[in-house]
Amino acid sequence: MQNSRRGAVDPFIVMDVMEAARAAEAAGRSVIHMEVGQPGTPAPEGARRALAKALEEDALGYTVALGLPALRARIAKLYGEWYNVDLDPARVVVTPGSSGAFLLAFTALFDAGDRVALGKPGYPSYRQILRALELEPVEIETKPENRLQPVPAELRDTAFDGLLVASPANPTGTMLNKDAMEALIGLCADKGAAFISDEIYHGVEYEAKAVTALEVSDDVVVINSFSKYFSMTGWRAGWMVVPPGMVRQIERLAQNLFICAPHASQVTALAAMDCEEELQGNLAVYAANRKLMLEGLPKAGFDRIAPPDGAFYIYADVSHLTDDSRAFAAEILDGAGVAVTPGLDFDPTRGAGTLRFSYARSTADITEGLARLQNYMATRQQKP
Amino acid sequence: MQNSRRGAVDPFIVMDVMEAARAAEAAGRSVIHMEVGQPGTPAPEGARRALAKALEEDALGYTVALGLPALRARIAKLYGEWYNVDLDPARVVVTPGSSGAFLLAFTALFDAGDRVALGKPGYPSYRQILRALELEPVEIETKPENRLQPVPAELRDTAFDGLLVASPANPTGTMLNKDAMEALIGLCADKGAAFISDEIYHGVEYEAKAVTALEVSDDVVVINSFSKYFSMTGWRAGWMVVPPGMVRQIERLAQNLFICAPHASQVTALAAMDCEEELQGNLAVYAANRKLMLEGLPKAGFDRIAPPDGAFYIYADVSHLTDDSRAFAAEILDGAGVAVTPGLDFDPTRGAGTLRFSYARSTADITEGLARLQNYMATRQQKP
Repeated sequence: MQNSRRGAVDPFIVMDVMEAARAAEAAGRSVIHMEVGQPGTPAPEGARRALAKALEEDALGYTVALGLPALRARIAKLYGEWYNVDLDPARVVVTPGSSGAFLLAFTALFDAGDRVALGKPGYPSYRQILRALELEPVEIETKPENRLQPVPAELRDTAFDGLLVASPANPTGTMLNKDAMEALIGLCADKGAAFISDEIYHGVEYEAKAVTALEVSDDVVVINSFSKYFSMTGWRAGWMVVPPGMVRQIERLAQNLFICAPHASQVTALAAMDCEEELQGNLAVYAANRKLMLEGLPKAGFDRIAPPDGAFYIYADVSHLTDDSRAFAAEILDGAGVAVTPGLDFDPTRGAGTLRFSYARSTADITEGLARLQNYMATRQQKP
Repeated sequence: MQNSRRGAVDPFIVMDVMEAARAAEAAGRSVIHMEVGQPGTPAPEGARRALAKALEEDALGYTVALGLPALRARIAKLYGEWYNVDLDPARVVVTPGSSGAFLLAFTALFDAGDRVALGKPGYPSYRQILRALELEPVEIETKPENRLQPVPAELRDTAFDGLLVASPANPTGTMLNKDAMEALIGLCADKGAAFISDEIYHGVEYEAKAVTALEVSDDVVVINSFSKYFSMTGWRAGWMVVPPGMVRQIERLAQNLFICAPHASQVTALAAMDCEEELQGNLAVYAANRKLMLEGLPKAGFDRIAPPDGAFYIYADVSHLTDDSRAFAAEILDGAGVAVTPGLDFDPTRGAGTLRFSYARSTADITEGLARLQNYMATRQQKP
């Protein structure tokens, strides 16, 4: 049997770093993990308790394709709580992670050959999912002065069928404010293009609240997830909010492509939404870690960073230190015992000169990691 | 925003029946559910205990894309236990249900416009997933004398890039024996077409063991699931076995399309594989139900049935009783208080003259349902 062309997606370069980190640990070395893209915390205790109870009482068979009605209603309520947006639960679709939501959104909106614009750097799976569905990613090289987010002027003369934005973004952590969001949604409306807003880091924000695209328009697709703020990465539970006219198309696709999101994960997610105290505790740790990073990274020479508005990443321009971020990450792992992510997965061109640092883990780890980076870089900078 | 063409997949006709059944129950009527495609039992007790323990001890974050190594090894071992096939765990991929496995298989093997042959009647989502991926389903009208399974003579003069078979099949319950499987795999090898074997009902078989395509060839894609024999539908955990040369392509696709199968479901599935006693108990219930169905359905006039080798379905030709199976199912629900599935979802043409009866639930329900069907059909046949 032969492999397809569309299935030949790119490998993740960060996998090399993760494998090298694993090997170093297996050999007895201590490694601080600043490469990870997920919280170290489990689902909130109240959520795990709710699942333990359901395990005793419920067969946990298939749910309806759009998700448990109570969960859809609770998600709709969140839009009131977080953004003062009044949302009809009928427009909420529970999905197998945001991954499932992207598959649903792209198949519901686009036919093979359609062009989808997105900013670079960005989450690498956007490109790969688009390619696997025979869609054409149109990558916009974003600018530091625009917080590494796309702006209308860069898109006005480009033909595209949809625009995908992320705020807070991975790998940069930068956000779109309401003006920026409005400008992009307006441009898409003018061009007849679909607008997809990846909001999976909402709730993980520091100096200002993130803006949902639903504050601007109902004619958008919003994608979110229980993975990050709700600390449930491995559960594969996410959601999307779609325009009323798209619900039936999404429902039929979801029935066929997924049947439903994992029932146990839906039960857990529903209870997680009422574990505000524990979740705010997690957020306080990220906030403390972020403060340490913003003080400590410049002392290690990493001072050219994108404004880290949200998420738990800092994206640093290291082009004055290396022209090969993959080799540089390997060197830092070996020399400092800190795993970091080379920018190449997020930006195949300029990523040779960038690194992503994650601060999702414990404050003790961050403190130790920063000390190691400072010591190592001090030595390195003295090299001839 | 506009919906795509490829996303305009067909609705499930059975949803009308399910909605009517729900409404009847809400109005206080008793309904016996012979329309359901899933066990009424939960995941085995030992499996639920294992998850309850993991909830206390493990953050249950992302797993690697191919699945927990211990689960992949245990699945490989199953092929020794069930079929005496020696399987390298490196070829096993844990997926978000068999649904996820179909998405991975189709994107890894086929490009837009490729043709995939499959028998009719068949599981409706095959067609819909293919269409959502812009692949062309080539439907073979199977014959009762071939157990409603495709045979090489029907395919030899047809151009196709892949063949998908299911044994035991949904909706018919019929199986391919080793000779039949060999003939189809041989034909695909001759034509350079991929061979995909849906084996999700393996383990739910009665008079003979089901044959895995891996007993015939390593150059096949096998898809299986924890949903049916392991009684874990809502958990969305399945697996595939692929040729060695396909593992890397599938791994990269899985990383991007899904990240991983739900971690909690993987933990549960691993433990379920050692709950043989409870699972054999479930199987004994299906076997008793099947015996009752084979005795009782003919007494109700449903005597033209496909050989129910496995799964928990009986597919009946009712073309002597109706030319509108959807109306007939509605009539049976209303008149007898039994929900059954019209064949139209499985076979858009001949399905107007077929029904699917499921016997996945309790024996008490089956006994009551059969009595209702017999009473109702006796009255109906006396109508002028």
